[in-house]
Amino acid sequence: MDERILVVGGNAAGMTAASRAKRLDPSLSVTILESGPRIAYSICGLPFALGGRVRFEDLVLFTPETLKNERGIEARVNREAIQIQPSQKRVVAMNRANGEREIHPYDRLLLSTGYRPISPGIEGTDLEGVFTASRLEDGEAILSWIDAASARRAVILGGGYVGLELSEALVERGLEVTVVERSPSLLPSLDPDMARLVEEELERKGARVLTGRVVKRIAGTSSGRVEAVELATGSLRLPADLVFVDVGVAPRVELAEKAGIRLGSSGAVAVSERLETSANSIYAAGNCAECTHLVTGRPMMIPLGTVAAKQGRIAGENLAGRRSRFAGALGTSLVKVLGVTAAATGLSSVAAEREGFHPVAAAIEGRFQASYFGSGAPAKVKVIAERESGRLLGAQIVGSAEGALRIDVLAAAITAGMTVRDASQLDLAYAPPSGALWNPILVALNALAREL
Amino acid sequence: MDERILVVGGNAAGMTAASRAKRLDPSLSVTILESGPRIAYSICGLPFALGGRVRFEDLVLFTPETLKNERGIEARVNREAIQIQPSQKRVVAMNRANGEREIHPYDRLLLSTGYRPISPGIEGTDLEGVFTASRLEDGEAILSWIDAASARRAVILGGGYVGLELSEALVERGLEVTVVERSPSLLPSLDPDMARLVEEELERKGARVLTGRVVKRIAGTSSGRVEAVELATGSLRLPADLVFVDVGVAPRVELAEKAGIRLGSSGAVAVSERLETSANSIYAAGNCAECTHLVTGRPMMIPLGTVAAKQGRIAGENLAGRRSRFAGALGTSLVKVLGVTAAATGLSSVAAEREGFHPVAAAIEGRFQASYFGSGAPAKVKVIAERESGRLLGAQIVGSAEGALRIDVLAAAITAGMTVRDASQLDLAYAPPSGALWNPILVALNALAREL
Repeated sequence: MDERILVVGGNAAGMTAASRAKRLDPSLSVTILESGPRIAYSICGLPFALGGRVRFEDLVLFTPETLKNERGIEARVNREAIQIQPSQKRVVAMNRANGEREIHPYDRLLLSTGYRPISPGIEGTDLEGVFTASRLEDGEAILSWIDAASARRAVILGGGYVGLELSEALVERGLEVTVVERSPSLLPSLDPDMARLVEEELERKGARVLTGRVVKRIAGTSSGRVEAVELATGSLRLPADLVFVDVGVAPRVELAEKAGIRLGSSGAVAVSERLETSANSIYAAGNCAECTHLVTGRPMMIPLGTVAAKQGRIAGENLAGRRSRFAGALGTSLVKVLGVTAAATGLSSVAAEREGFHPVAAAIEGRFQASYFGSGAPAKVKVIAERESGRLLGAQIVGSAEGALRIDVLAAAITAGMTVRDASQLDLAYAPPSGALWNPILVALNALAREL
Repeated sequence: MDERILVVGGNAAGMTAASRAKRLDPSLSVTILESGPRIAYSICGLPFALGGRVRFEDLVLFTPETLKNERGIEARVNREAIQIQPSQKRVVAMNRANGEREIHPYDRLLLSTGYRPISPGIEGTDLEGVFTASRLEDGEAILSWIDAASARRAVILGGGYVGLELSEALVERGLEVTVVERSPSLLPSLDPDMARLVEEELERKGARVLTGRVVKRIAGTSSGRVEAVELATGSLRLPADLVFVDVGVAPRVELAEKAGIRLGSSGAVAVSERLETSANSIYAAGNCAECTHLVTGRPMMIPLGTVAAKQGRIAGENLAGRRSRFAGALGTSLVKVLGVTAAATGLSSVAAEREGFHPVAAAIEGRFQASYFGSGAPAKVKVIAERESGRLLGAQIVGSAEGALRIDVLAAAITAGMTVRDASQLDLAYAPPSGALWNPILVALNALAREL
């Protein structure tokens, strides 16, 4: 009989792993169990669908039918995996459509259950008009609510990527938007001096940004509909027809935990370089699994689609019998907020301090275009290195999208363990219409070299 | 008395070196001798000034006056350095304005004399209406000629960067342009399959491209004015009111050679990692000096402004008494030709073969934007690795400017000595408006991994 590969979770990591395994060994029987009604969608696209720039249906890359026809993979949607029985090599699932239990045997199992939004632990999160986003349906529900409730005022709790992309969508839809963030600045992967540029852009475009504020509760009408957000700091009351909560994510690990699979100190499933869990023939990949941070060398949770997809690819190779390794990631991220794009990779100065490094940083304003071509592609570039060794620890770029995308060069340099001096000699491309003779990245590195 | 730094050649390398040395040690007396009438201009900007998109005067960053006032550096223009007397530590120069000889003593000397265009060695290059470009004045002369001669038909001899940027400028000015290249394809740093995309763009926009053709002679009228280009292959006769010759460059090394300074096998001045020549207290930097190719490890001539500026910076540090080293370069280049941008770094497949490697390559068509955002930023990505080790040797990207600029990520990966497998796991930035979950660079690397 053909070997059976079972994948729990049908998005970035799970879909990629299933596809890769089947492609490498077409004789495998590959089945995906997905608890939601859809597989293979771009959750990262949700804010853009909400903003009306793309359609929700365009975010779905495969249906179970097209996946079966095009890739020979079975996908069972609305199947909630409720128990792994490692000794029998099977998974018990509940069919949400009819409540029935199903048994899914496997030879090798992949856990790719992703993450869930953390609850802020305050009163009122169950009111009508309060939303989180972990599935495409959440976006559709928000859109319906905006129409049904004729929502005019939105409060976003949490100034992370999703919250800010959603803010953009709601500002563009004409809503009054207030972003409330507990930390002193937005975007925790950026240092405050860089995140400030994003804050200013939101304010310039009419949104209100309140940082360093703790939310007391979400207040509702007697009929259970959201009415306002009340802050503990300053006792402000923010009227709201719509509240979106994005205060963090946690890995979905209940299934693994119940089966006695070891979790790491981050709370996500501990995995080897080959993405094996502590249980025989069981792998984990994506946002439910740990990932080695390439600067600290320590396992952590890096909840990004790019990392999930890469882990999925490696897991798929191992499910198919190869012996592939996943080195780790830097948490490189990019977010567009109205007219500003912010990118970060590696550690921020703040994170580097917290991790016990002695960071030194330099930031410069540059243009990614020859000066005589005008005002092309301005951006602020910040680079961070370890004082003792000069090794690059992290970088951030905020400004034009063209500028922010150059973060990838620094991601490569950090991955390679380059020092500031090494990286400052990188032979980067230049032509007057789309570059500067001294690329702002090199200017920033030269500025940092002076501090070391 | 203050130490005297003398710099021969006042552009990318020389200007950067002079500025860096003076900045590090303001007590230095720093003098630049420049044979032309101007210093500190962006020769890379010449085609764009010719195209009318920028003004020639905007390409000049400093005059001798502003350089003196802002940086405390003396610049003597129209001074042709004619002899170095190393034993007396002085340079003999000729003042072009009055023909007088001048003696310039130095404690440390930098040669940054750049390159000159190679002559194609055919009849007719001295006709009126035949041009090369090594100085800003050449661009102004071409522009005057177009007006004076009411030039309608231009023939470009040589399909390198400058020739193609000039073709763009002339096409945009409404001239009929024919590019004649001796090799089987344009842009010698690209493989023919990639260069072909540039060729197609030129043809789409109405230019004529003739590759694999040898020029017999440039024919003129009895009054000494250019009339046509005659090809040896196929005996074509191309009527021309304007001929631009860009068939290669050679380092300007006569001064060094006469002084007994050692040249390398490439013909450029041999230098150490600290950019010292074989003569005591004499350094060389920029396009007259050799540069270690970071893939082959061998010294060669890499005639690019970016490399010249970086070498200049390091030379300036050493002129000021530091001990800085220049690692080398990859020859990363970028050229925009009408609607297409082409970038290359490291070795092409053709160059890798010639250098004795066993290259394996893969090329894919990708979009540097999420598919549901439409047709964003298409480009073809080619990556090249060594068969035995999997080490990356080179890369090329041709298509949108946004795509081509990503070449820098591959330049960093190649500099770090990454294998295809290493680089395929790079944690690159992604957000739907300006990226793809699987960055085309990673897709290309994954495709190449399958070939290894």
